[in-house]
Amino acid sequence: MIDSPIMPGIVRKNDRKIVMVVLGGIGSAADPVLGRTALEAARVPNLDHIARQSSGGLVIPVAPGISPGSATGNLALLGYDPLTYLFGRGALEALGAGLAVEVGDIAVRGNLAMVDGKGVVTDRRADGIPTAAAAPLVEKLKTIKVKGVEVEVAQSAGHRFVLRLRGNGLSAEVTDTDPLKVGLPVITSSATGTNGALTATLINDFTAQANALLSDEPVANAVLLRGATGKPDLKSFNESYQLSAAGISSFPLHLGIAAATGMAVYPVEHTFAAHLAAVREHWDEHDFFWIHYQEPTSTAGVGDFNEKRRALEKVDVHVRELLDLNPDVLVVAGDMANPTGHDGHSWHAVPFVIRSAGTLGDSGVERFNKRDLRAGSLGQFEAKHAMMLTLAHAGKLRQFGA
Amino acid sequence: MIDSPIMPGIVRKNDRKIVMVVLGGIGSAADPVLGRTALEAARVPNLDHIARQSSGGLVIPVAPGISPGSATGNLALLGYDPLTYLFGRGALEALGAGLAVEVGDIAVRGNLAMVDGKGVVTDRRADGIPTAAAAPLVEKLKTIKVKGVEVEVAQSAGHRFVLRLRGNGLSAEVTDTDPLKVGLPVITSSATGTNGALTATLINDFTAQANALLSDEPVANAVLLRGATGKPDLKSFNESYQLSAAGISSFPLHLGIAAATGMAVYPVEHTFAAHLAAVREHWDEHDFFWIHYQEPTSTAGVGDFNEKRRALEKVDVHVRELLDLNPDVLVVAGDMANPTGHDGHSWHAVPFVIRSAGTLGDSGVERFNKRDLRAGSLGQFEAKHAMMLTLAHAGKLRQFGA
Repeated sequence: MIDSPIMPGIVRKNDRKIVMVVLGGIGSAADPVLGRTALEAARVPNLDHIARQSSGGLVIPVAPGISPGSATGNLALLGYDPLTYLFGRGALEALGAGLAVEVGDIAVRGNLAMVDGKGVVTDRRADGIPTAAAAPLVEKLKTIKVKGVEVEVAQSAGHRFVLRLRGNGLSAEVTDTDPLKVGLPVITSSATGTNGALTATLINDFTAQANALLSDEPVANAVLLRGATGKPDLKSFNESYQLSAAGISSFPLHLGIAAATGMAVYPVEHTFAAHLAAVREHWDEHDFFWIHYQEPTSTAGVGDFNEKRRALEKVDVHVRELLDLNPDVLVVAGDMANPTGHDGHSWHAVPFVIRSAGTLGDSGVERFNKRDLRAGSLGQFEAKHAMMLTLAHAGKLRQFGA
Repeated sequence: MIDSPIMPGIVRKNDRKIVMVVLGGIGSAADPVLGRTALEAARVPNLDHIARQSSGGLVIPVAPGISPGSATGNLALLGYDPLTYLFGRGALEALGAGLAVEVGDIAVRGNLAMVDGKGVVTDRRADGIPTAAAAPLVEKLKTIKVKGVEVEVAQSAGHRFVLRLRGNGLSAEVTDTDPLKVGLPVITSSATGTNGALTATLINDFTAQANALLSDEPVANAVLLRGATGKPDLKSFNESYQLSAAGISSFPLHLGIAAATGMAVYPVEHTFAAHLAAVREHWDEHDFFWIHYQEPTSTAGVGDFNEKRRALEKVDVHVRELLDLNPDVLVVAGDMANPTGHDGHSWHAVPFVIRSAGTLGDSGVERFNKRDLRAGSLGQFEAKHAMMLTLAHAGKLRQFGA
């Protein structure tokens, strides 16, 4: 809805403060064996307390049946309709890793990985290599030169890095080299559209040089590239909504969202406490705080039910500090479903609650979980509407139409 | 949905009769102090009876978070997507006051008001001047001539009048002269776009002459103008839906909607009984009756909870007469939320029930209020879909697609 023609006429600035907390992968679907979600099993008294004071419902990240990526789910919550703003993850992650992406550039996400003698992938994530151990390998990649274009490599978290190509005639119309599964050979990139031939050649050239440089490394002897994208063209969050926004995350991808939408970018350590500390530190500078917090278990897609439950309980302890800040509007939502017992993200609707001076709780909603929130007054709605509801609760939208 | 390309292929005429009753400002949000809505507190056995025989749900007037004007909410219920049909209130109110608005004309809404010696507004509504007392003042305004264009003034209800300008080079790209708040000076109209300069000058000329003519009046010594608009370009309701529709209201704005959409226009007195009498009188002439009834308390935005509750109870008494007419399809809905304890309209979803031979009531819905209707079989849906549901229940839509 950020690009709705009605926005400029109805949005207004005031001094109320909004905190939007996005808990990556919460809610989702019941575990097929245990019959409930980790959130239902978890003891989360502070989240329950918020739910009882809020208007609640379920958010459909994109559309029924669509399993979104995390960037997609978060951008939708921020009002960028994912069916309008189609773009890959490469450029967002590059921005999050501190690489500027300009018009004409192509950014590609990279993994440090293991392949066998026949070029078949045996480990897509280099045995969970820590960021510090990956650093010297990424330094090697930074020495690579490719004919005719400028190459820039930046380290991201763990096994991840980002490659940015800058030059004439580049295109995102190329296939990934990452087969996305172990047991399959590395793919030779090829053009998927009329303009992709040059870029595919450059990607294959980079890959060959990288694999030569890494050939003796014990845990990461190859690179896998995916998600080539150009500059994301996102409307300014602050201008469109008349806000001064802060984006807080420990993930390059999500920091990239903050950068691409024009928020102030605050990278933090990977604890919920660190995220809240950043909110407190910058409280006076902003009127909108977007916290993206990905709980560790869902991050890796491990999907262990009890680990997920414990992670939620750990978050809940710090939610009390969130309440101490007493924002005028508090939103707690999921970005996409990542159910245990399910292969990857799913399409299921996720929890959404909004607390303001105008909310009293919804009858039938006692707990912060999907079973209760199904009965909430907001019903089910597409994530792209979430920002409008949020601004409305903050008194930041005028009446529309006569 | 009136402009959906599938409409002409699926709509069909039959002799079933539809009554759509829109109760302005009902449902809305719970009073923050009392913890419930006026509708929940009211004794409305007849509305409850209808709810128990209907399919029900909640209607989102425009989109989540958007607080619409009443015209916007009503047009949406009639199938005119408010995000497509953007237009101001001036032309609708002019039409409702009996002034034709043609392509090239500009219509402006006027208030009789009081200003102090410095031109600061002290009363925007001339102390609630009755229509009869306002008549001679509006007669004075009708004598005004403005250079180069044809001026027409028509009286509306109470302190309201409408100004229509007809001539070459007119534009709606002008600012209001009405500051919308007491304590602020009357604004000099100016152009908001490249074509507005002439119209702004004419509006200021009219204002100066009007204020001179009214200068000795004890309760209304000035005019305030707002909402300049051109001809609204709305698809014909009757042609699109194959209906013969009647629009019944006591409000010029809503009568303007009826006129602009091509319905037969029946102005009535401001009681619900008068609205129903008009339905009975014209029962044989039409197959669609749109009744817009604005309960007095919500109209003025007074927002007194008990007054609102009593107004609803008063309406309910006459709802029995509605049942005696036994229309094939009966819709009772809100147009937009206007909660007590809230400044102006709000974005909240409003009640919607539809009763036909095909409805049996929804389990969990015992009363005509939002708390119950949240559990209704229609769920929550955007108002622009309401007419399609209504036509479907009347058997007026064929199968779509093979």
